[in-house]
Amino acid sequence: MPPLVNRPATVVISELSPLVEGGKYPTKRVAGENLRVEADIFKEGHDQVLARLIWRKSGQKEWQEKEMNHLGNDRWFAELQFHETGRYEIGITAWADDFLTWLHDFERRLTGDQTDFSTEIEEGRVTLNNAANRAAGGRAGNDAEAIESLTTTLMQMEASAVPALFHTPDNLALLARWPNRSLATTGEQMIPLVVETKRSSFSAWYEFFPRSAEGLSNHHSTFRDCLPRIEDAAAMGFDVVYFPPIHPIGVAHRKGKNNSVTCEPGDVGSPWAIGSSEGGHRSVEPALGTMDDFVWLLGEARHRGIEIALDFALNCSPDHPYVRDHPEWFYRRPDGSIKYAENPPKKYQDIYPLDFHCDEWKELWEELRDVVLFWVEKGVRIFRVDNPHTKPVTFWEWLIAEIHAVDPEVIFLSEAFTRPKMMQTLAKAGFTQSYTYFTWRETGAELRDYVTELTKGHMREYYRANFWPNTPDILPFHLQHATPAAFKIRAALAATLSSSWGIYSGFELCEGAPLPGREEYLDSEKYQLKARDWNKPGNIKMFITRLNRARNEHPALQSYANIQFIPADNDQILAFHKWSDDGTDRIIVVINLDPHKRHESNLYLPLDELGLSPGIEFEVADVLFEETYLWRESTNFVSLDPRTKPVHLLKVRKL
Amino acid sequence: MPPLVNRPATVVISELSPLVEGGKYPTKRVAGENLRVEADIFKEGHDQVLARLIWRKSGQKEWQEKEMNHLGNDRWFAELQFHETGRYEIGITAWADDFLTWLHDFERRLTGDQTDFSTEIEEGRVTLNNAANRAAGGRAGNDAEAIESLTTTLMQMEASAVPALFHTPDNLALLARWPNRSLATTGEQMIPLVVETKRSSFSAWYEFFPRSAEGLSNHHSTFRDCLPRIEDAAAMGFDVVYFPPIHPIGVAHRKGKNNSVTCEPGDVGSPWAIGSSEGGHRSVEPALGTMDDFVWLLGEARHRGIEIALDFALNCSPDHPYVRDHPEWFYRRPDGSIKYAENPPKKYQDIYPLDFHCDEWKELWEELRDVVLFWVEKGVRIFRVDNPHTKPVTFWEWLIAEIHAVDPEVIFLSEAFTRPKMMQTLAKAGFTQSYTYFTWRETGAELRDYVTELTKGHMREYYRANFWPNTPDILPFHLQHATPAAFKIRAALAATLSSSWGIYSGFELCEGAPLPGREEYLDSEKYQLKARDWNKPGNIKMFITRLNRARNEHPALQSYANIQFIPADNDQILAFHKWSDDGTDRIIVVINLDPHKRHESNLYLPLDELGLSPGIEFEVADVLFEETYLWRESTNFVSLDPRTKPVHLLKVRKL
Repeated sequence: MPPLVNRPATVVISELSPLVEGGKYPTKRVAGENLRVEADIFKEGHDQVLARLIWRKSGQKEWQEKEMNHLGNDRWFAELQFHETGRYEIGITAWADDFLTWLHDFERRLTGDQTDFSTEIEEGRVTLNNAANRAAGGRAGNDAEAIESLTTTLMQMEASAVPALFHTPDNLALLARWPNRSLATTGEQMIPLVVETKRSSFSAWYEFFPRSAEGLSNHHSTFRDCLPRIEDAAAMGFDVVYFPPIHPIGVAHRKGKNNSVTCEPGDVGSPWAIGSSEGGHRSVEPALGTMDDFVWLLGEARHRGIEIALDFALNCSPDHPYVRDHPEWFYRRPDGSIKYAENPPKKYQDIYPLDFHCDEWKELWEELRDVVLFWVEKGVRIFRVDNPHTKPVTFWEWLIAEIHAVDPEVIFLSEAFTRPKMMQTLAKAGFTQSYTYFTWRETGAELRDYVTELTKGHMREYYRANFWPNTPDILPFHLQHATPAAFKIRAALAATLSSSWGIYSGFELCEGAPLPGREEYLDSEKYQLKARDWNKPGNIKMFITRLNRARNEHPALQSYANIQFIPADNDQILAFHKWSDDGTDRIIVVINLDPHKRHESNLYLPLDELGLSPGIEFEVADVLFEETYLWRESTNFVSLDPRTKPVHLLKVRKL
Repeated sequence: MPPLVNRPATVVISELSPLVEGGKYPTKRVAGENLRVEADIFKEGHDQVLARLIWRKSGQKEWQEKEMNHLGNDRWFAELQFHETGRYEIGITAWADDFLTWLHDFERRLTGDQTDFSTEIEEGRVTLNNAANRAAGGRAGNDAEAIESLTTTLMQMEASAVPALFHTPDNLALLARWPNRSLATTGEQMIPLVVETKRSSFSAWYEFFPRSAEGLSNHHSTFRDCLPRIEDAAAMGFDVVYFPPIHPIGVAHRKGKNNSVTCEPGDVGSPWAIGSSEGGHRSVEPALGTMDDFVWLLGEARHRGIEIALDFALNCSPDHPYVRDHPEWFYRRPDGSIKYAENPPKKYQDIYPLDFHCDEWKELWEELRDVVLFWVEKGVRIFRVDNPHTKPVTFWEWLIAEIHAVDPEVIFLSEAFTRPKMMQTLAKAGFTQSYTYFTWRETGAELRDYVTELTKGHMREYYRANFWPNTPDILPFHLQHATPAAFKIRAALAATLSSSWGIYSGFELCEGAPLPGREEYLDSEKYQLKARDWNKPGNIKMFITRLNRARNEHPALQSYANIQFIPADNDQILAFHKWSDDGTDRIIVVINLDPHKRHESNLYLPLDELGLSPGIEFEVADVLFEETYLWRESTNFVSLDPRTKPVHLLKVRKL
């Protein structure tokens, strides 16, 4: 444990980074990911300062330590990786090192005209003696003897030879083991850190509606029918399958096809209108099967490397049991009736929103936490949260902390498509991953700016982007009636620009029929069973499979923030490189953003950053298409035809 | 007092600014100076959020409030000025406003096809009734009646007329006086603010050695002899006269002329080698007179608008009483003898440094605090602190807080010429003003970059630059054997780029003889009495007088951070404008940086920022040289001959 002295600080330790809002929220990393800590560290006068990072896991007493190094301008750094998930605190301790200060002072004296060094030799003897006493007090008797022997040598030698005596790696290390830290300062500020599972930042999601698993418009599929779909997702390389809500769907004011306010007989309703006489958020829609069926599917999926993510949507249909049992949790009109959702002048009569600040807020919050715990106990480890930005941030901060106290590896994906500050704050408050504006970033400049904002500024410390080209709510204009090349380009961008990506099913079949003039699907599956041939000709499943395989085989593509854009002549060519923290894997990604035309460009590679040298040949092997090129120098030519090959994923190999 | 509810926060309040190191140190302003507070403020959903700044002076219980305004992207701001010096805390309270939310919702409903508004009218009635009840509970019976009357009108009117009823300034203000703040959130983070005297950021310093006040090399002047020099400084427009240490000077190892280690009979020694048998830091050098003489001079100076600043130099000569009475406060050799100061291989045998972390540190620190209090009691209000960066930052933080607890208006100038982080941290820790790198910034680019760093980044909140063209320790190369034009240019830069500036005497006489090859004065006054004709032909006293007069007459030049550089074609022409917080005073400063040649340039004025419009003529009146020009448009021509007129100070006047 670092000494906490009852004296004023001797060393200034400040401007610690990375901190999220000054340490109000934890900084995030996943297991094994690099954390670079920096701080300003300095002291008055000319003492030689040493600094160490200190850290411990929450609940542990002992501190671990690691040397920090001086970057210049009084800025110091050290890098760490944590392999166990959980919460940590990280701080800094620093001190003026008496031995190094003495040695440095001695060396400077040798540059002057001093001839008698007896006082300085004696000071050295005292300093070394103290170190030997500390070593003897520790469990390293050999160190004490070694220091005593050094002292004897010091007392017998010429002053000019003193620096050489100590400037050996062994002797410096020996004395570094027994520093005088009686006046060390430990910075008051600590970095709260949360280390999460690798899947928190590296995941590939596939969303489908279980009721349409078989692709039949006249037959409601069940959980038992979902296994082939899950196997298909696994074959494409996805590791998360996300289901829209699986709870009983309300009958009152049920929406018809294409969001019609009139519901025809046989219409299945929106899964987000949760709750009926069959139950609420703890129940499953009977048409999907039983709870046992769901638990069975969860196990079968996990057996195939797939986690099933549930949708946590805090809407209640008018038929939800809460409405009967807890009318006090809802907004009320002056006449006492419960309010349905509105965004005037739009009305959503099939949904009753909850009042998170009602008088009985505590009971409501606890019930909602217990709902999540209920599903965690069933084995669900991932939740996609619907519209979290319409509920209080403090609610999520509390709820996620409560769940993580039970199981810190439960993942929450924030589906907040709203203003930037709210999206950021939900991530700070605990959401593991977040949806983004990627869906609407199209040009090279837009994509570069957005990814730079996500990975190079403060968001890097707490926001983990999950890039989705489409969702059941969003069919962006650029995918409407688009060619397979357009779908491939968006898939490649999502799967390589971020380490987490996902698609809503139908994307792989290049479905692109919109409601006219809207960024929404025609005949949306949200309101009806959907007929589909899951192996429809012209699908891009093979391309997606290759993308996910490349991601799974290459640590560079699994890293979240290790991304650097590469200049290109042609604005339709987006190029960047990604690397693993240890630098052993480097992938150059080149994407033609134009789905209609071949584009060519020179790329200007930053050879240094790629670990390469000018004039030395190196190999770039396309891991998608199994082609290899020999390059040298920084300028290199690429040519991509979207109809055949819209993207290069080039593994860099020194020869 | 803002309501502190025992419920979770309903509004997110974050990223408060300006904070110094997240609130660890206070943000600084001077009395009357503008403070712009910003924060991210938002809430889930569609409620109409209102926010107010809250503040109170340290020790007060009641909070004051001011409305904040939305800037966009969930960022809010408000501006404040404080006229009383002291410490304040500033925070934010925000809430979803039920009346405005209801009104906004009502207006959106009117855009749809809703026809029956009876429920919404009834909700409005309830909302207004609650407001009327709050008003009745307050001391504003008329407000309650007015709200009740509004309610009656509301109940009788057409829905379409409702917005017009409330969207009058009177009715909006009426309801804004009685908001429902039962669910308001007050941000946890507060801004600690210290408001200091205007002199803390606006001052003109003149440094001279009292022993050479009469300018005689063979006669030691006394405090009584200093009055003419002080009157001359006052006539030149200075308001602070700073004396090097006035304490008894040590005899042991006294330095001779030009820092010689051998001292000739009659050599007066360095005032920074403090302490002799005549006393230490609480005594005055007998050759200067008595304590009564000093106190007399202090009073006479103040009578003439001049504060005398003392030098607080924590050096002891070997003859200092502390050496005898408190050997435990000094560094010791292994043989027990006291160490003199060294910066190996350089030795300073005439000075013993104090060990601020000695075992008896507490007694030492308290004694040093008491020394400052001693002089404060004598009437000294300003201290220039010698080499604070060689003492612990925590010592200064403690000492300045202790002094400010007695008198918050005492000013400390930090003479730290060292690395940036240490200089910044001393300012954060409490120093009122700081020396800077200005002395070595020469080109336009260097000056622009440096002033921008000082006034536009985090330093603006805590660091108040005092610009000195020279000091007794520094005769920069550009002033060596230089022409009066060079001195005028440096004076003009210092006096206008910062709101605090100072010169070491001799500057006004254009003294420029260096130790060869060094940035030091030949025959430095630090070690000898100095012969001078204080009205030597060729002096620039009139120019300095005009500069200080312009500063005293124009609030724009008294503002610290209100500075914006103006693009010019010619790199030798530096142009910028300054303005008063209220915008009523605007000065364009144009300086020819080349002391040898006339330079001409176009300036490209930011007319908007100057409160001007293109095509409309305006007047710029040179307040130094009493010339007036008529300008229009943004591009304007200037021509400056350094031999006659190296600078324009142009007061902008709309016609």
